[in-house]
Amino acid sequence: MMIELFGELLGTFILIVLGNGVVANVNLDKTHSHGAGWIVITAGWGMAVFVAVLSTADLSGAHINPAVTLGLAFSGLFEWAKVAPFILAQMLGAMLGALTVYIFFKNHFDTTETPGVKKSCFCTAPAIRNYTSNFFSEVVGTFILVLAVLLITMPQLEYESFGSTKVGLGSLGALPVALVVFAIGLSLGGTTGYAINPARDLGPRIVHWLLPVRNKKDNTDWAYSWIPALGPVTGAALASLIHYFISCNC
Amino acid sequence: MMIELFGELLGTFILIVLGNGVVANVNLDKTHSHGAGWIVITAGWGMAVFVAVLSTADLSGAHINPAVTLGLAFSGLFEWAKVAPFILAQMLGAMLGALTVYIFFKNHFDTTETPGVKKSCFCTAPAIRNYTSNFFSEVVGTFILVLAVLLITMPQLEYESFGSTKVGLGSLGALPVALVVFAIGLSLGGTTGYAINPARDLGPRIVHWLLPVRNKKDNTDWAYSWIPALGPVTGAALASLIHYFISCNC
Amino acid sequence: MMIELFGELLGTFILIVLGNGVVANVNLDKTHSHGAGWIVITAGWGMAVFVAVLSTADLSGAHINPAVTLGLAFSGLFEWAKVAPFILAQMLGAMLGALTVYIFFKNHFDTTETPGVKKSCFCTAPAIRNYTSNFFSEVVGTFILVLAVLLITMPQLEYESFGSTKVGLGSLGALPVALVVFAIGLSLGGTTGYAINPARDLGPRIVHWLLPVRNKKDNTDWAYSWIPALGPVTGAALASLIHYFISCNC
Amino acid sequence: MMIELFGELLGTFILIVLGNGVVANVNLDKTHSHGAGWIVITAGWGMAVFVAVLSTADLSGAHINPAVTLGLAFSGLFEWAKVAPFILAQMLGAMLGALTVYIFFKNHFDTTETPGVKKSCFCTAPAIRNYTSNFFSEVVGTFILVLAVLLITMPQLEYESFGSTKVGLGSLGALPVALVVFAIGLSLGGTTGYAINPARDLGPRIVHWLLPVRNKKDNTDWAYSWIPALGPVTGAALASLIHYFISCNC
Repeated sequence: MMIELFGELLGTFILIVLGNGVVANVNLDKTHSHGAGWIVITAGWGMAVFVAVLSTADLSGAHINPAVTLGLAFSGLFEWAKVAPFILAQMLGAMLGALTVYIFFKNHFDTTETPGVKKSCFCTAPAIRNYTSNFFSEVVGTFILVLAVLLITMPQLEYESFGSTKVGLGSLGALPVALVVFAIGLSLGGTTGYAINPARDLGPRIVHWLLPVRNKKDNTDWAYSWIPALGPVTGAALASLIHYFISCNC
Repeated sequence: MMIELFGELLGTFILIVLGNGVVANVNLDKTHSHGAGWIVITAGWGMAVFVAVLSTADLSGAHINPAVTLGLAFSGLFEWAKVAPFILAQMLGAMLGALTVYIFFKNHFDTTETPGVKKSCFCTAPAIRNYTSNFFSEVVGTFILVLAVLLITMPQLEYESFGSTKVGLGSLGALPVALVVFAIGLSLGGTTGYAINPARDLGPRIVHWLLPVRNKKDNTDWAYSWIPALGPVTGAALASLIHYFISCNC
Repeated sequence: MMIELFGELLGTFILIVLGNGVVANVNLDKTHSHGAGWIVITAGWGMAVFVAVLSTADLSGAHINPAVTLGLAFSGLFEWAKVAPFILAQMLGAMLGALTVYIFFKNHFDTTETPGVKKSCFCTAPAIRNYTSNFFSEVVGTFILVLAVLLITMPQLEYESFGSTKVGLGSLGALPVALVVFAIGLSLGGTTGYAINPARDLGPRIVHWLLPVRNKKDNTDWAYSWIPALGPVTGAALASLIHYFISCNC
Repeated sequence: MMIELFGELLGTFILIVLGNGVVANVNLDKTHSHGAGWIVITAGWGMAVFVAVLSTADLSGAHINPAVTLGLAFSGLFEWAKVAPFILAQMLGAMLGALTVYIFFKNHFDTTETPGVKKSCFCTAPAIRNYTSNFFSEVVGTFILVLAVLLITMPQLEYESFGSTKVGLGSLGALPVALVVFAIGLSLGGTTGYAINPARDLGPRIVHWLLPVRNKKDNTDWAYSWIPALGPVTGAALASLIHYFISCNC
């Protein structure tokens, strides 16, 4: 169990270092890659998923996302007893990842003036603020992610590694799931910034709130924070429902 | 049969949510990804095919395109009796997908002024209107798509999943066919917007016609609508012919 | 033999339709994708190789490039007797492909004024004209391509399809070789436009010379034409040499 | 042993020809691809790794990076006796690669004025000079690379080719490791230019110092040179430590 939790922590850490990293790399002032555009942002998040899943699939199953853990649990494919510890490990990994991104890009955070740009390197924000629409965006994006994960793994979800059974995509699933996240970013990411993962948004948001980011102007935006947390959980539940309907009819 | 039709509906739904989604994500005002360019559009459509085929290959064979269904039927590889229900399911899935994209990006549709930009999030339009040339574009694009599908699957087209036989690329074919669509978009998409799929264009066009899109100015452009419907069917027929010639000589 | 030649013709046809297609798609006026940039050009050529090889690997081995055919022959892996017919089929396929691109983009050729832009949709041209440097560029680019092909296929170059033996990468080699061409374009394509394939340049150049392209101003540039023909052959010979050295020492 | 050293030399040569090549292709004046942006730079380096590893995996294991060689040795997976010759071969290959890029782009080096732009085609430079931060950047980037390599290969690191045992990713590992390097570039490359490989930076830096690059103004920047050399070694050591911790608990 310890190694599984370490796997989730490490996987989510890598996810956030590379994922929040690409936002900082593109958005902060004076990086070599400043202003590189949406293709870099979405490829960066897709590849962040790839590296994280590839590195930790054999350790924990590489959920690295509470919505995936919950989607598997809703569908009866993952023990409920492990859900809370997994999510805790994911939150901790995401917070450590956000801290690392802050230290990594410290000089660039210091030369960047706009508070919103700096916050975007921690957590998501809506392009047009409308809580109903924004919630719907996070539901649909996560629905597609979790449904794809559940359908891809229908023939075989469990696999052996290091002498115990893991539940997840496995290392062969790293590229498919990375491309699914790439797809969601390309196509649906422009409204809310596609959190589609409660740990990815909430963990770094807490770190933004705690850290003495220069000129951050108290804009952690807690009023919005429930959307990228509950939207993904709702999307995962919907995906489990469709998956259940399919399972019954196949 | 029910699960196969559900697979086609779900697959085409995902295709259009992500495919029309990327057009909306790039073209509509005030998204985070506004103006992201052709590489995002074409990667978005390619990955839309990937997610759709990967998710539904085991349910229905994942044709998600009447031109593919007809190409397989022309070549004697798919029962004619299933063609009409498959196309109906694809049309329904495409319409539901277009509706979802509209709701997803509702705020951005409202802040976007140009009617043509809003219509581009539903259906295709020619860069230079010339019905002969435009028809030729859709024929060639679909010819390459369907020929590739037929040639890739020559060694093995049928596979077992959930206790019945499916005809299509299978989940291992998801990446190849996605890259074929990516290729067609990159190279041939700039003249007509590469519908290469009658359901992808006609379904969302009907939705555009029905929906109260703000300031749409009745520009559903029915005069053009037959080209992205009949062009792909003609291209599929040509591909079947070449495939037949090859089959006879191998 | 007939089906092999047809495979080479079809494969090179697809290569040029999609490869020259992406240049037209990006460079000609008024396409949806006008000005899409180098990432689209290089991804387009890479994916053109992917679709062409994937579609015809089982028909002919999918050389679709005289430099590859010669590289295999230099290395004693391909019968010399088949070399001339293969190259002829590749030339014919390339010419038909260039003609198709011209018809496909006819309206856009008509609205584009600059002759050099129109010629770029047929054949390559140097960024800075210097025959020694330009020749070196084509040698190095093709050296890397052919060496990679020879080294990738070292464990197994021959495979069975449709009851006869083929020599080439096979359909599993479609993605690797496509990525090699993508790599060469990204990294080395900016000096001469990376022909790295005599048929890709010479075939369409002849078509440009023959066709009544509006306002082409006789700029087929025959003075340069030997470089993208002989450079790749020299690069292939060098790659065979290194491959021979490796074979002797393994 | 000779063929292994030749493999490392050839692999690092290809890595630098394509990797430094993409920087020259994008940064130098008057190339067809001038100003193509960060997505081209990062895809170019990723694909450079792909071609290099694919071509030489069966010859030497394709480390092509002293940090990888040292990471494997730190973890007890690679003989210490081979470390120095491997690194020497890598350095030599990198220097030959840098020389080839200089000759390849000679005309473009001559028309480019800014010394820093020309130097960027040889070795890395920090976006904001701060030795502590810059060192940290190179440590983190290489830590992720080497940890991924070590974790990917945990089930099987050794393989047979040409009658002897190789230690590395193998040719099937070419795409995964290429995507890891793509990921690191996209997400973490904007601060120091992600050397993450001592041979990639130091070898070409020596070549820049030796070559009579027009108007280079003695800016080889030796004061910075230790960071892209020692940072990666430190990152590799850290990755070995984590890998050791995981190995003990699995």
